[in-house]
Amino acid sequence: MPSASASRKSQEKPREIMDAAEDYAKERYGISSMIQSQEKPDRVLALVKDLTVQKADEVVWVRARVHTSRAKGKQCFLVLRQQQFNVQALVAVGDHASRQMVKFAANINKESIVDVEGVVRKANQKIGSCTQQDVELHVQKIYVISLAEPRLPLQLDDAVRPEVEGEEEGRATVNQDTRLDNRVIDLRTSTSQAIFRLQSGICYLFRETLINKSFVEIQTPKIISAASEGGANVFTVSYFKNNAYLAQSPQLYKQMCICADFEKVFCIGPVFRAEDSNTHRHLTEFVGLDIEMAFNYHYHEVLEEIADTLVQIFKGLQERFQTEIQTVNKQFPCEPFKFLEPTLRLEYCEALAMLREAGVEMGDEEDLSTPNEKLLGRLVKEKKQSNSYDMFMRGEEILSGAQRIHDPQLLTERALHHGIDLEKIKAYIDSFRFGAPPHAGGGIGLERVTMLFLGLHNVRQTSMFPRDPKRLTP
Amino acid sequence: MPSASASRKSQEKPREIMDAAEDYAKERYGISSMIQSQEKPDRVLALVKDLTVQKADEVVWVRARVHTSRAKGKQCFLVLRQQQFNVQALVAVGDHASRQMVKFAANINKESIVDVEGVVRKANQKIGSCTQQDVELHVQKIYVISLAEPRLPLQLDDAVRPEVEGEEEGRATVNQDTRLDNRVIDLRTSTSQAIFRLQSGICYLFRETLINKSFVEIQTPKIISAASEGGANVFTVSYFKNNAYLAQSPQLYKQMCICADFEKVFCIGPVFRAEDSNTHRHLTEFVGLDIEMAFNYHYHEVLEEIADTLVQIFKGLQERFQTEIQTVNKQFPCEPFKFLEPTLRLEYCEALAMLREAGVEMGDEEDLSTPNEKLLGRLVKEKKQSNSYDMFMRGEEILSGAQRIHDPQLLTERALHHGIDLEKIKAYIDSFRFGAPPHAGGGIGLERVTMLFLGLHNVRQTSMFPRDPKRLTP
Repeated sequence: MPSASASRKSQEKPREIMDAAEDYAKERYGISSMIQSQEKPDRVLALVKDLTVQKADEVVWVRARVHTSRAKGKQCFLVLRQQQFNVQALVAVGDHASRQMVKFAANINKESIVDVEGVVRKANQKIGSCTQQDVELHVQKIYVISLAEPRLPLQLDDAVRPEVEGEEEGRATVNQDTRLDNRVIDLRTSTSQAIFRLQSGICYLFRETLINKSFVEIQTPKIISAASEGGANVFTVSYFKNNAYLAQSPQLYKQMCICADFEKVFCIGPVFRAEDSNTHRHLTEFVGLDIEMAFNYHYHEVLEEIADTLVQIFKGLQERFQTEIQTVNKQFPCEPFKFLEPTLRLEYCEALAMLREAGVEMGDEEDLSTPNEKLLGRLVKEKKQSNSYDMFMRGEEILSGAQRIHDPQLLTERALHHGIDLEKIKAYIDSFRFGAPPHAGGGIGLERVTMLFLGLHNVRQTSMFPRDPKRLTP
Repeated sequence: MPSASASRKSQEKPREIMDAAEDYAKERYGISSMIQSQEKPDRVLALVKDLTVQKADEVVWVRARVHTSRAKGKQCFLVLRQQQFNVQALVAVGDHASRQMVKFAANINKESIVDVEGVVRKANQKIGSCTQQDVELHVQKIYVISLAEPRLPLQLDDAVRPEVEGEEEGRATVNQDTRLDNRVIDLRTSTSQAIFRLQSGICYLFRETLINKSFVEIQTPKIISAASEGGANVFTVSYFKNNAYLAQSPQLYKQMCICADFEKVFCIGPVFRAEDSNTHRHLTEFVGLDIEMAFNYHYHEVLEEIADTLVQIFKGLQERFQTEIQTVNKQFPCEPFKFLEPTLRLEYCEALAMLREAGVEMGDEEDLSTPNEKLLGRLVKEKKQSNSYDMFMRGEEILSGAQRIHDPQLLTERALHHGIDLEKIKAYIDSFRFGAPPHAGGGIGLERVTMLFLGLHNVRQTSMFPRDPKRLTP
């Protein structure tokens, strides 16, 4: 069945290799017609990562990309890639392959998708350039399923090269704009695959932890009627005959859910900031992982839940995503991310005492200047007695949270004090008029946490399709 | 400790009950000062749902809302509520409570949040109006934590009354606009609590199932540079000095992730439709649960994964959310949602044959008219040979999906045929130029699936803060 079906497809060979009269292998290769769900062959496709010596001498079918190809006399070596995994494949003139077939294989454009039938053979020596180092695939049939155009906008091998190799050895690397302009290719690299598979894991661990803690996932609206946070940095939307705005944070809605008795809530969703910042850590659209929780007597109850959630995420990543972490480290070496369980928690006065003990002279509310003390400096600044908290990874702030005001009168006073138009936040303030529990919360940015966990340096590396003031595509 | 701490707070009693000279219980009740995390009492709060005969004669502290209060001679009966659970509490003149304390309790506004210390007593007879039917709480102390304003914009008991009772017995129910205008109160009802806790479960089950199937969660941008789906029904955003648009679907980005080798992806996120429809099933912003998947030879591979995912969600809901389903059914009675595992799948020709057997006369491509055949009618319409599929719940379409075009040339031809400006979808089409696997996908609307699963009739019931052409608040 498989070969019959496959041979029916092998009609459209490039003219230059149409040397059919003497080609005894002509049914064994070619360009398949487009897959349009006309057939259901009962062919089983093996995964590249499963090609090990346990499968030696088995005949398997594999669908993979042509990562590289290299002709050498009567042979052609291909590297076949599936996401982070690759295997060497050999097409050699012999019983199964003709001269024309080897030539055909050697001419397949890189990144094309092929179906290959081959025998798994134990390799004579380790194949250092592949993840499957102990076997190679001896190709018997090869069909192109989707042909890539010949000129790639960037080379995948360049895109995973560590900067230092590029600088010291003068080898090509790929700059960020080229990557982002051709993001679909850039996302195919082992580094990108690892980054975004790990990022998916962050979301999963965040939710898994919170669901186990009896939190409820909520969906907050992104289109809102008023620029509730003062009007700066907010995107305006044309909403039928009026204007609306994109939410800069789910905070007001999280709080309303607390007033609505959901008690412990979380959400994951886009957050929009019309900030004209072109830094390594700002995006105009990012993904917020947000928590809000009613507490009984002290906001530390919330602080502890948030801190524990972060610890569970970090633990889960180190347990379940070690391959991905190491893959990213190959291109971007960094110290493994370290954390304490429970997290290290410094009260304002403890931080101050530590600094003074270390010989730092400073007033009670003075900010710090030396870079090493950035972390503590931030802790100190305006945090005294404010029932608020910052959390840090690798010295950078990832979360800023606080006990919220749950009294409508005090809320009104504070809003007036900050010059906020009460009419615009009426629905919000009204939420507190019919009994509201004390509560606190906070939020982290998915891209920023991914970046810091992996020791990367630009938040665009951890956003699949980043948005900043200058970039809206792809 | 607890009583000492509590008594310190009982300073601000309303003047009319300041009858201190003869009030032997004056430290046992009052309005607490605002909780500002000044103290960490080691008081343990019990949950209302845990108050059962197993706890008989124990002294417990409970924080709950005053659902109702009713004075009767020297006694006051309160119903204390925590989300979907409630318990009867009794304040009676005696050793612990004075006349003034009973009066104080009777005057606490409904929906206020109180801390109550009481003894759990076995009830003499079943308390039919409460979820905790076998016990009542004999109150020894009661402090108001957050006082509700006296006039509620809607009564919770009215808000959970089945329509039929309202109509037949002339009792009050609450209309939809009143509910939505006062959504925070409406969300406190047992019905709303159940709806949104179940909805959180849908999201969790969707992701859990897909992660177990090795799907990767992706985050797609919501701000896009071009109105890629033709320009109709799209919201425009002011983006610095230019215009941008809100994504009407994550489809193009899901497909780009397939081209980027993520193979099986899903996402949950807001979807925006600037459609001026005011029906029971349209929102301008809803939550899309989307899937996209590369397949080997036939799009049925994808169809089966999607169908199985839906089955796993329905099974999970019925296993884990039976209480919530029954709670909603009390107010909105309906047939339990039924499904087959595997799902019932009709090919176009099978559907046609069934109808003809049932005596329906119709041409091969004719649409159906009778309401009963709505389902099959939709199946029939334009589905023949199109590699597409619709999925239905209770006869209503919830998902429409298809094999996508993965060939850049064919894609270009189709785009031109539909009059789409190629320049606007350049990044999308370019994604297919460097090898693209055949793939298919689909998406469901979270609100719509929740509505149909629970047999509700308006999608606004299953959106916490719904958005339609006329509603942007709260």
